[in-house]
Amino acid sequence: MPQTPLTVAELSEAELLTRIFPRLELGAAHNAAVLLGPGDDAAVVAAPDGRTVVSIDTQVQDQDFRLQWRNGYRTTGYDVGWKAAAQNLSDINAMGAVATSLIVSLTMPSGTPVEWVEDLADGLAAAIGKLGAGSCSVAGGDLGRGGELSITAAVLGTLAGGQPVLRSGAAAGDTLAIAGNAGQAAAGLALLESEQHPLESLTPELRLLLDLQCRPEPPLEAGPLARLSGATAMMDISDGLVRDGARLARASGVVLDLDVPALRLLAAPLQAAARLLGADPLAWVLGGGEDHGLLATFPAGVQLPPGFTGIGSVQARGTTEAAGVTVAGRPADSVGWDHFAD
Amino acid sequence: MPQTPLTVAELSEAELLTRIFPRLELGAAHNAAVLLGPGDDAAVVAAPDGRTVVSIDTQVQDQDFRLQWRNGYRTTGYDVGWKAAAQNLSDINAMGAVATSLIVSLTMPSGTPVEWVEDLADGLAAAIGKLGAGSCSVAGGDLGRGGELSITAAVLGTLAGGQPVLRSGAAAGDTLAIAGNAGQAAAGLALLESEQHPLESLTPELRLLLDLQCRPEPPLEAGPLARLSGATAMMDISDGLVRDGARLARASGVVLDLDVPALRLLAAPLQAAARLLGADPLAWVLGGGEDHGLLATFPAGVQLPPGFTGIGSVQARGTTEAAGVTVAGRPADSVGWDHFAD
Repeated sequence: MPQTPLTVAELSEAELLTRIFPRLELGAAHNAAVLLGPGDDAAVVAAPDGRTVVSIDTQVQDQDFRLQWRNGYRTTGYDVGWKAAAQNLSDINAMGAVATSLIVSLTMPSGTPVEWVEDLADGLAAAIGKLGAGSCSVAGGDLGRGGELSITAAVLGTLAGGQPVLRSGAAAGDTLAIAGNAGQAAAGLALLESEQHPLESLTPELRLLLDLQCRPEPPLEAGPLARLSGATAMMDISDGLVRDGARLARASGVVLDLDVPALRLLAAPLQAAARLLGADPLAWVLGGGEDHGLLATFPAGVQLPPGFTGIGSVQARGTTEAAGVTVAGRPADSVGWDHFAD
Repeated sequence: MPQTPLTVAELSEAELLTRIFPRLELGAAHNAAVLLGPGDDAAVVAAPDGRTVVSIDTQVQDQDFRLQWRNGYRTTGYDVGWKAAAQNLSDINAMGAVATSLIVSLTMPSGTPVEWVEDLADGLAAAIGKLGAGSCSVAGGDLGRGGELSITAAVLGTLAGGQPVLRSGAAAGDTLAIAGNAGQAAAGLALLESEQHPLESLTPELRLLLDLQCRPEPPLEAGPLARLSGATAMMDISDGLVRDGARLARASGVVLDLDVPALRLLAAPLQAAARLLGADPLAWVLGGGEDHGLLATFPAGVQLPPGFTGIGSVQARGTTEAAGVTVAGRPADSVGWDHFAD
């Protein structure tokens, strides 16, 4: 007889926490910033320079992830935990700060397997460790019931005495640069949504793109390095290079002009997936979100910190021109991607 | 023709935020702690003593509130916003700390009326203002879609150089005291669930109980005052006096013994509702949650700070006795409430 998996409805909150906590213990180095961890009404986290950087982000089943994708892939608890951590850590990274703690609230239907929740805790811990959030740990959280799976994480961070890098500081003449992936997560999403190309048929190169959609890899060293290198503006790319770039451009009152050769380089790792699916890889580079790369501007002549690649320049806005993103001088959203294709 | 209300699906996130932000502006005094507010990848909040107290709490439709109750009451956005703020501010209060900011993530079905969301923002702001969280404001947040309404708030606070009051510090001989309501929210819940006594039939006294379920009033001055008065242990009562008291008792390795006359005094405001519904008011006092009163212990002889009332004493655990809560020496969970009724 097949064994029915143990569900969260069969455990008390205390019993479930007993299974989760050991999975979140990340070693002494990780816990340095958490002065009082889970178990009381609130946690206490160090804020050594007298300020706390804070952000919050929610993922909801069937909105931000499907439990079952068209190509056969099933989203694991590990994926959801990883992504919750990665998205939030990225917001701290985008300020040039370093994460000190995550506070996680998990809402689950009563039929959720306990194993899935344990897997989620493993994913949270793995993302913190493998993405290099060396001084971050899970300081607390909340468990509750709901009709659908939903995970909200709040993340705290420190600027270590520095100033946050805002979206509003880009100036004409600055160099525009990117760190991390651009388009991989979008290509991975297209693969997940493709019934014609089932999971087991994917080459390792394609599987990597799928993995980067499910478990994105924000470049967590790049944010603080950009701040120390004098980045004038920065944000994380969660909704796509053009959409997020336009936000930075508007906040700064400038135009961001992207170079075609740089975009082609970014598109190179996406060619195989684009050929398979008959898609335009440049559309993924320009429009794809969820990679959580960093878009930053630096004063001209500054040596870009490790991890960043120049992809264009910041230009003054013409008197009649809206702040926004252009590609080789043309508005990025009014020109077909095929203008720039090989 | 009846006008169809504008829904969130008809506005962009930016348009919706434009309607929400002005409602959250609480005046200069409130914003002192928020160094960088909404609009960038993360907010920056002051942590003047180098530490941040942090907690998180989620409310989900049909789990934590019903949109439509059996007695005819409809939960408003204002109620949900108020409760989200109140619950979270209470967690900071329970550490003896003062809230500096709320970060709010709201998940909504696409048919949610925009007016409901505006009302929710008003409720958040009103709770912060009216409950006396004088230096707190909303520093940031996240909006998203989901199949059900869900609101998660993370709250940050400061201990102003003091030590957090934990659950684990109660010692035999201490006085046990309570601040705020006990049982009102439970009585209000019973009224909301009662089909026999429709909303419009309730007297103002009964309506007040219903209101305290929908918009609880945690005593936010009491937490920091308790800390300054030398409270040895403290927690907020969200799951009921006996259940939460047992948590404090276990964390401290003691027995909390409640006085019957004190419990009768707490039950007095619940008598009318109890008579109407044929319920035991002491059951609400001992078992009712969601009032977010504070349970605290103080060294014997300390003058209780304003807002606190003595309700019993802390006793050493006998060698064979479990840490827990007793009422006049009998285990609170093994004796019927009628033992203590008038």
